[in-house]
Amino acid sequence: MIRTVIIGAGNVAQHLVSAFAKSDAVEVIQVYSRSKENSSNLIDSSKITNSFSAIADADLYIISVSDNAIHEVSKNLLFQNKLVVHTSGSVSMDDLENQNRKGVFYPLQTFSKSKEVDFKSIPICLETQNESDYQLLETVGQSISDKIFKINSEQRKALHVAAVFVNNFVNHLYQMGNDICLENHIPFEILQPLIQETANKISTLSPKEAQTGPAKRNDTQTINAHLSFLSDATQKEIYKILTKSIIDNGKKL
Amino acid sequence: MIRTVIIGAGNVAQHLVSAFAKSDAVEVIQVYSRSKENSSNLIDSSKITNSFSAIADADLYIISVSDNAIHEVSKNLLFQNKLVVHTSGSVSMDDLENQNRKGVFYPLQTFSKSKEVDFKSIPICLETQNESDYQLLETVGQSISDKIFKINSEQRKALHVAAVFVNNFVNHLYQMGNDICLENHIPFEILQPLIQETANKISTLSPKEAQTGPAKRNDTQTINAHLSFLSDATQKEIYKILTKSIIDNGKKL
Repeated sequence: MIRTVIIGAGNVAQHLVSAFAKSDAVEVIQVYSRSKENSSNLIDSSKITNSFSAIADADLYIISVSDNAIHEVSKNLLFQNKLVVHTSGSVSMDDLENQNRKGVFYPLQTFSKSKEVDFKSIPICLETQNESDYQLLETVGQSISDKIFKINSEQRKALHVAAVFVNNFVNHLYQMGNDICLENHIPFEILQPLIQETANKISTLSPKEAQTGPAKRNDTQTINAHLSFLSDATQKEIYKILTKSIIDNGKKL
Repeated sequence: MIRTVIIGAGNVAQHLVSAFAKSDAVEVIQVYSRSKENSSNLIDSSKITNSFSAIADADLYIISVSDNAIHEVSKNLLFQNKLVVHTSGSVSMDDLENQNRKGVFYPLQTFSKSKEVDFKSIPICLETQNESDYQLLETVGQSISDKIFKINSEQRKALHVAAVFVNNFVNHLYQMGNDICLENHIPFEILQPLIQETANKISTLSPKEAQTGPAKRNDTQTINAHLSFLSDATQKEIYKILTKSIIDNGKKL
């Protein structure tokens, strides 16, 4: 068993504790949490500490705290030359303090505390400073997920930006759809099957192949009708810029 | 059985012919198609005509042609006072010629020729000029779908604009995610589970509740890092405007 300490008690930390509990290869021997109560529903309270000096000896330390606390937490560790990884999509591996061997263990998914996730299908992006540490991290990843990818810090940065587009920004467009429905006394549920199908299509078609709509057809009449229908300035602006981008895109190869 | 003629042979027309073939309430007695070959795989060739003067007597005529041909086709019909509906999201019911009773039968989904769809879960938006025709159209709708909504032309216009946001524009954001991955030698499949989960979340949370990410947190440091990472001017512009919109949205109630 790979003896692992998880440092942090947020969303990702809690999902990792649950996932490793079902793994044959990894044992979470301790969780560090500033307030002990946060994790007591997931692990025996004797295994929770709120003191850096009480952190146990382990094969792997996973820091799962907010992005801007990663460096500080890694500096507070009182041991050297151990494998210490963080779980962030947007923080470079080099942000970890030099006294330990560095790595990244980044599960690319949107986690809600209330919603159970199936870790098996969550891609986990791995990076290590030393090639010799990669295998251990790969074993840890494979014990909870079928999708392990070797991704360096520069690629992870790109991936995080891409994730903002397909997750945060997409969700914001869902909200605009929702707002337009509400203003016109239309139940948003009418759009649900379309939203699902739009996401499903992408598993068999490339986004370029899947593109439809007035912008794709350069259907100026419908585009202008939509623009005069929209009264909200922000919605109008977003409609215009995305329409222009789809039209320009159609002109490329 | 409600005797129905389908006028047109495009995506939606073909999906309707397939769906009605399994219905107990509706019989497609004829399909009008300019070129007979288009529909011969779906219906007996003796039931296909390419002549307006040969269109059979029926209870319902469904015009399923491109938006800008709807008016012209409805003018070409050689009978009067029959129930004639179109299937478009963006065309007003009034675009149909006056000689017949008007209605709309709009299935809100993105149809690909190659991909089978389950009609049961597709919302169908109905509208009729005469209240007395509504019941017949409702029976037709219920024979293929569990989700029937009464939606007038003004609401349908709103719905079509909302659909552009959650379908066409969302797909374009998928493409931007795809492009960013390709440029950085990252397989786009890493983002697939996130795309699915983002769509799934919306079935239990409102888009506002589901919103996460640097813009939602007003995390200026990450936002600036992303902006300096992006080199494509259009991607940068879209990143900026959607980020601003999410931030502004967070300031509302």
